[in-house]
Amino acid sequence: MSNKTLIFGHKNPDTDSIASSFVMENLEKNLGNDEAKAVALGNLNKETKYVFNYLGMEEPEIISDVENDQNVILVDHNEASQSVTNLEHSKILKVVDHHTMNFVAPYQLYYRTEPVGCTSTVLYKIYKEYGIKIDKKTALLMLSAIASDTLLFKSPTCTPDDIRVAEELMNISGVDIKSYGTDMLKAGTDLSDYTPEQVINIDCKLFEKGGKKFKIAQVNTADIDNVFKNQAYFEAAINQDIEKEKLDLYVFAATDIVNSNSKIITLGHDAPVVEKAFGVSVTNNTAMLENVVSRKKQILPNILNNLD
Amino acid sequence: MSNKTLIFGHKNPDTDSIASSFVMENLEKNLGNDEAKAVALGNLNKETKYVFNYLGMEEPEIISDVENDQNVILVDHNEASQSVTNLEHSKILKVVDHHTMNFVAPYQLYYRTEPVGCTSTVLYKIYKEYGIKIDKKTALLMLSAIASDTLLFKSPTCTPDDIRVAEELMNISGVDIKSYGTDMLKAGTDLSDYTPEQVINIDCKLFEKGGKKFKIAQVNTADIDNVFKNQAYFEAAINQDIEKEKLDLYVFAATDIVNSNSKIITLGHDAPVVEKAFGVSVTNNTAMLENVVSRKKQILPNILNNLD
Repeated sequence: MSNKTLIFGHKNPDTDSIASSFVMENLEKNLGNDEAKAVALGNLNKETKYVFNYLGMEEPEIISDVENDQNVILVDHNEASQSVTNLEHSKILKVVDHHTMNFVAPYQLYYRTEPVGCTSTVLYKIYKEYGIKIDKKTALLMLSAIASDTLLFKSPTCTPDDIRVAEELMNISGVDIKSYGTDMLKAGTDLSDYTPEQVINIDCKLFEKGGKKFKIAQVNTADIDNVFKNQAYFEAAINQDIEKEKLDLYVFAATDIVNSNSKIITLGHDAPVVEKAFGVSVTNNTAMLENVVSRKKQILPNILNNLD
Repeated sequence: MSNKTLIFGHKNPDTDSIASSFVMENLEKNLGNDEAKAVALGNLNKETKYVFNYLGMEEPEIISDVENDQNVILVDHNEASQSVTNLEHSKILKVVDHHTMNFVAPYQLYYRTEPVGCTSTVLYKIYKEYGIKIDKKTALLMLSAIASDTLLFKSPTCTPDDIRVAEELMNISGVDIKSYGTDMLKAGTDLSDYTPEQVINIDCKLFEKGGKKFKIAQVNTADIDNVFKNQAYFEAAINQDIEKEKLDLYVFAATDIVNSNSKIITLGHDAPVVEKAFGVSVTNNTAMLENVVSRKKQILPNILNNLD
C-alpha cells in the first residue's frame, strides 16, 4: 500500500473530476497532508487537455485499482460503480461531491456534498471556510470545472452558487469565463482522431435500477450532423458494449453546446423507454431532445422514472 | 404533507440528537427557512430534560413517521433503521452527522459529516462558515451535546475539534462545562422511576450485518451495582425484545461515567461473541469491560469484527 493519499474523480473523467482532484490535492497540502496526490481513473479528454495546456500542467498518473487499506479521497463521485476497483477495501478519508448518493462506510469520515452544479463550487466554499488563499492556477482549475459542468451557466444543473463562485474565481484568475470557457468547450468537441469506441467512452456513466443496468454516454459538439455521420460506427461500438456488459439500455447523447439540445442514439432491449421518458418518437434508433443538455438533471431522472 | 421542514435526530434520542435538532432549526431560520421545525422520534431522557429545564425550553413534539414528500433534515444519524418510518418517501434536504454511513438518495442534497465526537461540533463549524451569530441558548445546547457525547472529553470518540469548539462555546454561553456537564450527566443516571423496558430503551440502537440483527443499549450511571440490582428484570425485558424483533444479539451496557468502564448484559444466540470481541469471560450473562465507554468506537466495532 502506498503511503500517499490518492485523490481521484470518476471513471471516464471529465474536467470537473480532473480539476477538482488537483484543487483537492492543493487543499490537503494546505491542511498539512503532504502525501496528497491527484491521480485519474482514465485519460484526459480534449477539453481537459486544453485546460492543462493552458496552465502548462503535467497530466496526472492513471490508476484503475487500489491496494487494501489505501488512503483515498473521492471527488465528483461517490458510487463504487463509478470508482476505482477495490474501493470497498480502501480507507476513504474524505468525499467532496455534488451528485446523488449511494454510499456506505463502516467508519467515520469527512463527507461534504451540496446540490450545486460542480464539485469545484463546493471546494471553493471549503477553501473559504478554512481561510486558505486561492492562487491563480487553482482558481482557473475551479473556473474550468464550473464552465464545463454548467456549460457556461446554460445547463439546468447550474445554481446561483455556481455563478457567484465563478464570478469570484474570475476576479482571482483574471480570466473571462465566456471567452476562455467557449474555447475550452470547443476544444472538447473535436472528435476527429477518436475511434467510435473512444467517442462513446469520452464521458460514459453506468447506472443501475432494480437489477437493470444501463449506460448514458455524452459528447459535446457544435455540429450534431457532423457527429451523426458516424452513426453506424457508434451503433456497432455500443452494441458490442451492450453484449459485453449485459446492458439493458444504452443512450448516447450528442449535446449541441451552442443551441442547447441533444440528439440521442438509443439501443438495447429497453431502448423504447426513451419515447415515454421524453415524449418523442424514436426513428432509426435516434431522437432529438429539445432543450436537453444535462445527463444528471434531465436525461437520467427521466429514464429512471420510466424504466420498469 | 406538512409545509414544514421537520428536523430530527435518531430514535431513542440522546442529548446530541435533541439539542442538534434545535441548533439546526435556528440555523435554518437564519438561512431563511422559516418553516424549519425541530421534532423528536421519542421522549427526552432525563439528561436531556435537565438541559431543557435549565434553559426553560419546551420539549419538542414527538413523531414516528412522515408523509410522502415531507421535507426533512436529519441530524445525528443517517441510516433508515434509526430514523422515522417512511423516510424513503420523504424529501431529505440536508444531513448533518458524525456517524458511519449507509445512505442512499436518488437526488442531490446537502450532506455534511465529519469524524468528530458530536453533531453539534459540525454544526458549530457551519454557523462559523455562514457567519451566523451563536446566541447563548444555542451555545449551551451545543455545549450540552458535546458534554454528553464525549462524556466530558473522556470518551475515545472525543477529538481535538470537540474540545476546541466546547471551549469557544463556554466563552459564548458563560457556562463551565465541567460543573454544568457533571450535573447534566448525573441527572441522566437517575433510573429510579423507569420500568425495565424503559431503561433498555433510553439509548438503544439497532444494527445489521450480513443478515444478522442486533441491538446495543447503553445507560450512564455513577453506580453500576445499583443498576445491576435489577438485572433479572432487564433480562426479561431484553428477551422479550429479542423474540419480538427476531434479534440475534442484544448487548445492554451500563457505563460508569466516573470510573470510565462498562458492565454489560449479553443475550441472544450470538451472546458468546462478546467473549471473543472483548477478551472477557461471560458469567451469568454479564461481563465487565474495563476502559470501555463508547458504543460507537469500542462496543460496536468489536462486535462487528467478531460477528460471523
